[in-house]
This record gives sequence, C-alpha cells and structure tokens, in this order.
Amino acid sequence: MRTAIERKRDGNSLDAATWHEIIAAYAQGAVDDAQMAALAMAVHFRELDLDEIVALTEAMVESGECLQFPRVPFVVDKHSSGGVSDIVSLVAVPIVAACGVPVAKLSGRALGHTGGTIDKLEAIPGFRVALGTKEFIAQVERVGCAIAAASDALAPADKRLYRLRDRTGSVPSVGLIVASILSKKLAGGAHGFVFDVKCGSAAFMHDEREAVLLARRLVEVAARFNRPAHAVVSAMSEPLGRCIGTGIETIEARDFLRGMRHDARVKELVLAISAKMLALGGIDDGERRAVAALAEGHAYERFVAMVEAQGATRAALESLAVAPRAHEMRATRGGTVARIDAVSLGNLSRRLTSRASTAGIELAVSIGDLVERGQPIATIYGDGVGAHDIQHAIEILDTPESVLPLVLATL
Amino acid sequence: MRTAIERKRDGNSLDAATWHEIIAAYAQGAVDDAQMAALAMAVHFRELDLDEIVALTEAMVESGECLQFPRVPFVVDKHSSGGVSDIVSLVAVPIVAACGVPVAKLSGRALGHTGGTIDKLEAIPGFRVALGTKEFIAQVERVGCAIAAASDALAPADKRLYRLRDRTGSVPSVGLIVASILSKKLAGGAHGFVFDVKCGSAAFMHDEREAVLLARRLVEVAARFNRPAHAVVSAMSEPLGRCIGTGIETIEARDFLRGMRHDARVKELVLAISAKMLALGGIDDGERRAVAALAEGHAYERFVAMVEAQGATRAALESLAVAPRAHEMRATRGGTVARIDAVSLGNLSRRLTSRASTAGIELAVSIGDLVERGQPIATIYGDGVGAHDIQHAIEILDTPESVLPLVLATL
Repeated sequence: MRTAIERKRDGNSLDAATWHEIIAAYAQGAVDDAQMAALAMAVHFRELDLDEIVALTEAMVESGECLQFPRVPFVVDKHSSGGVSDIVSLVAVPIVAACGVPVAKLSGRALGHTGGTIDKLEAIPGFRVALGTKEFIAQVERVGCAIAAASDALAPADKRLYRLRDRTGSVPSVGLIVASILSKKLAGGAHGFVFDVKCGSAAFMHDEREAVLLARRLVEVAARFNRPAHAVVSAMSEPLGRCIGTGIETIEARDFLRGMRHDARVKELVLAISAKMLALGGIDDGERRAVAALAEGHAYERFVAMVEAQGATRAALESLAVAPRAHEMRATRGGTVARIDAVSLGNLSRRLTSRASTAGIELAVSIGDLVERGQPIATIYGDGVGAHDIQHAIEILDTPESVLPLVLATL
Repeated sequence: MRTAIERKRDGNSLDAATWHEIIAAYAQGAVDDAQMAALAMAVHFRELDLDEIVALTEAMVESGECLQFPRVPFVVDKHSSGGVSDIVSLVAVPIVAACGVPVAKLSGRALGHTGGTIDKLEAIPGFRVALGTKEFIAQVERVGCAIAAASDALAPADKRLYRLRDRTGSVPSVGLIVASILSKKLAGGAHGFVFDVKCGSAAFMHDEREAVLLARRLVEVAARFNRPAHAVVSAMSEPLGRCIGTGIETIEARDFLRGMRHDARVKELVLAISAKMLALGGIDDGERRAVAALAEGHAYERFVAMVEAQGATRAALESLAVAPRAHEMRATRGGTVARIDAVSLGNLSRRLTSRASTAGIELAVSIGDLVERGQPIATIYGDGVGAHDIQHAIEILDTPESVLPLVLATL
C-alpha cells in the first residue's frame, strides 16, 4: 500500500488491479484509514485518469450488492450534486414516470447547507424512505417510480471512503467524486443516468470549468459501464425555487406538480432534466411530453401514487401545510435584487427545520427583480430565525442586475 | 482539524497555535492517524514555511521530556541523514571529545539500506546503547562523550508521526524532515548541532538542490531555538568508507581511530564534521586539532573510554573481528570503476549481518580507480550473499571516470 500511495503521490497512475486490491484490502482492514486518507489526499493533488476512475468505481460497486430490474426494459436514475431549494427530483421523477419511463431514484440526506430529497419526502406523515430492495424494485415495476434512501448494502466501500474523505479534507477531487457518485448509482441498478451538476457559490463546485469537467467525467465513466448518461450543469448561487426547508420544499414541489405554482426557474430546470431522462428512455420529444404530463395532471397523479406506495396518503400529502408562525420580511430599500445568498439561507432553514419539518423560508423575489422599499421579499415560517438573520442574505442595490442563465451546459 | 487540513491543502500556512493544538490533540487521540496522515500528505505537496517548521518542532519537543546538561557549558550533537558505510559518528565523536568539546550523541537504528550507529556499536560484546537519562548525562560529563539510543520519552509525538508518515508515504517533505530531526535533537539537550546531509542515489535526498535546502532549513530552524548549527552536504552515491555492515564498520572506525586505516574519503568527511563540531564549541583550528587527536592516540583512547563506560571492554573492542567465511571478488574486466551501487551493497550487507553481526562487505576500490581483470575488488565476509549478487553493484567501464567531490557544500 505504501508503494501505491507513493506512486500516486509522485504522479503515476495505478492500474486497475491495484485499485481493486486497495478497495478489497480496505474492506478487510488490511489497509487502514490512515493509509486510505493519505492516498485520497495524494489523489486530491494528482487526480485520477479515466481508467483509474473506472477501476475505483468498479471496485466500490463490487464491495456490495447491486440491484437489478429484470422486468423493466429501461430504468433511469437522476443525481444532483446538491443545491438549495433543489426540488427537481420531486418534480421530474413523477413527470418522467408519467411519460412512460420508469425511474428508480436513490437519494441522500441533507448535507451542509444543501437539502436532501429523502428529508423532504419524510415531511409527509407516513412516508417511508427506507424501502427494502425487493420492495423498491417492485414499486418501480408497479408504480413506475420510487424515491428511497440508498441501502447500506450498496457500495459500502464508497460510504466508508466518503466519510473518511469528509473528515480528512480530501472531498474535492473530480475523480473521487465521480467514483463516489457512480458507484452508488451503478449499484442502484438503473440503465441510464442524468446528472444535475450544480455550479456556483452555493454548490459544491464553485467554478464552471470544474463543474463541466465533473459533468463530462460522469458521462464518460458511465459510458465505460455501458450506461448511457446525460449531464446538465446548472447555476446554484441563488436558491433554485422559492421555498427553502424540508417540508416546505415538498409543498412547493406538490403545488408545482398540480399546477398551483409556476416558478420559471424550477420549470426550466425540471424540463431540461426530464427531457434528458426521457431521451435516455427513447422518447425524443421529452420536453413537450413533460409539459403535457404536468398540464394534464398525470405527473401529479404519479406523484400521489408514489406517495401512497411508500406508506403515506393523498390526504397526508394534500393537507401538508407550512409551519404556522410566519414573519414577513420587507425590503429596507428600493432597487434591484442583486444577490440572494443560498448558503446562508440554506443554513438558516436548517435551523428552522430542526424545530419543525415544515418550517422554512419562502422567497418572494429572484435576482434581477425590481423592488420598492417596504415590499415583501421573503416569509419566514417557524421559530428560531428572525428577519435580522436573513437581512444580509438578500442584497438590494441601485444598479440593475443582469440575470445569468440557469442552465450553463448540457452534455 | 478538518479545517486545518483543508487550509494546508489549499496552500495556506497554519499559525503556531494551530500546530501546537494539532500535536497536543494527536497525543490525546482527539486527532487520529487518518487526519494526521491526510495533513502530512497535504504538507508533502504544500510544504511548511519557516514559522510552521518552528512551531511543529516546538510542539513535538513539548510532547515529551528534554535532557539538560547543567554541569557542562557547551555540549554538541551531530546528525547524519543516513548513508552506507557512514562511520563518521563513530570516529568524529571521540575526536571532538578528545579535543575538549563534550558530545551527547543520540543515534538511531538502521533504516532501509542505510546503517545505524546504534546497531554498529552493539556489535561490540557488552556495549549498551540503552542508557538511562541520568546515566547518559553523567557519562557526557565524566567521559566527554556518549552515543546512545534516543529514549521513547524524547519527542514521542515525532516518533508516532514518523511511523505514520513512513507507512502512508509522506516522508518526503523538507519541513516535516527538519521538524522530525530537530525535535529529537532539541529534546536531546545539546547546545549546538552539526548536520551531515547526504545527497545522491543512496541518500534520502537524491537532488543536491533539495539537500542544500534541507541543510539550510536545519540550520535556520536550530537558530530559531538559539542553537548554533552547521551543516555539511556530502555525496552518498558510493559507500563512504570501505566496509559495509554493522560490526565490520565498527572495526573500520576502530582501526581508523588507532591509525591502522587511512581511507581518504572517511578522513575528509570526519575532519570536516569534526571541525564544525569543534567550531561550535569555540575551537577555531578544529581540523588541525582533530588531526593531532588522531595522530597522538587521544581520539582512540576516548573511544575506548566511551566503550568501557557503556559496558564493554577494551579487550572486547580490540578482539572484534570480521566473520570468518570470506569470499574474494575479482574484476571480471579491466577498466575504471565507474559506479559502486551503495543501495544494493547496503541491502546485501543487511542480508549478511542478519546472520552474523560482523559479516559484511569490504570494498577494495573506489569510483575512479583503475583496475585490471582479475584484481580483487571486494571481500564478502559471512554467509548468504555471493559474488554474483554483488557483481552488478560494481561497474567497470573503459572510459576514465571523473571523481566527484565528497563535500558538496558547508553551511
């Protein structure tokens, strides 16, 4: 192992057999956390080439179980690199399923200032995110979609390595990130993937060039496993939607699906991602089909079916309401909304939702909006955060602000 | 700790308080090997600035005991970065003591292909290298010199960190090397240091620029602790002396001290190091004094006194003889000795000495020597290695070989 660390440290590539041996030895305890942490830090500085990412991914997949969907010809999954008010999964999964392409979505929990789809769904009373393997597969076959927490049996080496990297400062590495994401996704058994790579101050990747590189690598490595994939690189500086919290984002997604909300930014990204997911499933006019599934209520009904299949009821979903205590926040000056700090808002909403799962923040403005002094700009639901906490997160300036594109690149 | 790792990883300097906290937390277990290994690897890539080396060194010194020599005005110590047939300590320590400057030398064991002074002295029957703190100090005061193994109570954090770096591939880092060497030396209590930094294919530092940088850093950091220091950068591609082994090197040193051997390379480096050690002790014409101490037998008598103080006898020292089974190795062609591979010879001698402590290899030639076919070029004492193993380590070519200088730089 020391030799392998030194070779990587000195800028060499390790061959596939070595990566397999390292991960196997790590699983058995023959390689310990200290050696693995040193290797991961060396990789942070030296990176992995494509063959190395493929080998590491494969080794981590082989460390655990793999799901299979024998009764469905083509199942898609979708992954987001994490954002604030990122409700794309909640909306796109039932849309795609309603359009006829089954979705087997394995999701994570909140991480730092970013939300987790699992946490959001758990705000619906009765909703179960821990599905057994057979149950998950059966639901995908029967309902056409499921969103569940990834079982510990899938790519356990990745889970252990990620926890290690997280506490030893070697999370930033395109190669390690790709191997981590893809090992989980491959173990999840879907036949094609769409990756939503967020880019900006509130995303894991701040730099667009790096985000595009990550997106490209994800697609390239998936291809090496014969899994067609697409990637969308999208901006994540301001929150994607209007609501920030767990239950409040589920409410926003529900209301978007049933036509009671029409936020343009959410719509743009949901349609872009849905179209790519449908394209993988052989549907070329995906955007048109997705718009129709929304308009005709099929997407919402599929969402309800999924909610019911996972232990909750339509009534529980439809009676879900934001936490009662509300505080309206108003602009302290007139001007243009120049900046909405998604990191701060994400962290503040974590404080709110720790007291009530349907607490959170609802924005009334986006970057570029003109506001007058005294105009409502946000509503805070729940206790624990006041307007003064949020004041600095929404910046209003005299100068007009150009609105940057939401979708930065598609692959 | 994660923040500290990330700051170092991203090229920032950590302040002195942070280094002290890290080492204290590592000693208490609040920082574990995985985090420390990641930090060390980040340091390998980003290096430490002078202030950081000073802080890390100080923190590691403070992790354990420090020796003091209250009854001696100025004690020197000497450190070698490790070489093959490096008998400088065995010869220079008694020379310097004989010239009136006390030497408190803490030494290590063999590492890889390089020998360890402690192992060499242990070849003398009865010689004790594990001296108690009081005993070590008293011997320096009474005899003027002692060479002992560093106690585990000195800079224990360094010992733990070095072992970790060794198995996780982060040994190469000038800053970490300086902190490791100096923390042990400072804890050893000497008032001034001479560093023999080896450079070449058989040295830890292959590159002269890096070796000079290490030498400079050692002197600079010592100065920050108010310890005057000098450094000598010397070539280590071929073995320094003629003998390679443990006991066989002690025999070579003994015979050099008593005027029965006069190897020019050993003499040059011993005099350079001795003069620097004497200069620290206030003696300006050190080289002349050292030559006299050798010629008049004072240096040898001081060596005998040290051997006796550490449990062995003059008779044991003087009856020490090389292992009996000898094999003479002859030149397979005529020409000039172009290369003597000290790494191979060091490794082969480890095989020989593992069977008998006075086994080893004695060279009859140096690089640049003209040899005729059939002329003896080396003798192998002991079992386990034959002439064919050594053949490739001594290369004879037609072209005359220019002899490179032994002492490359002095600071």
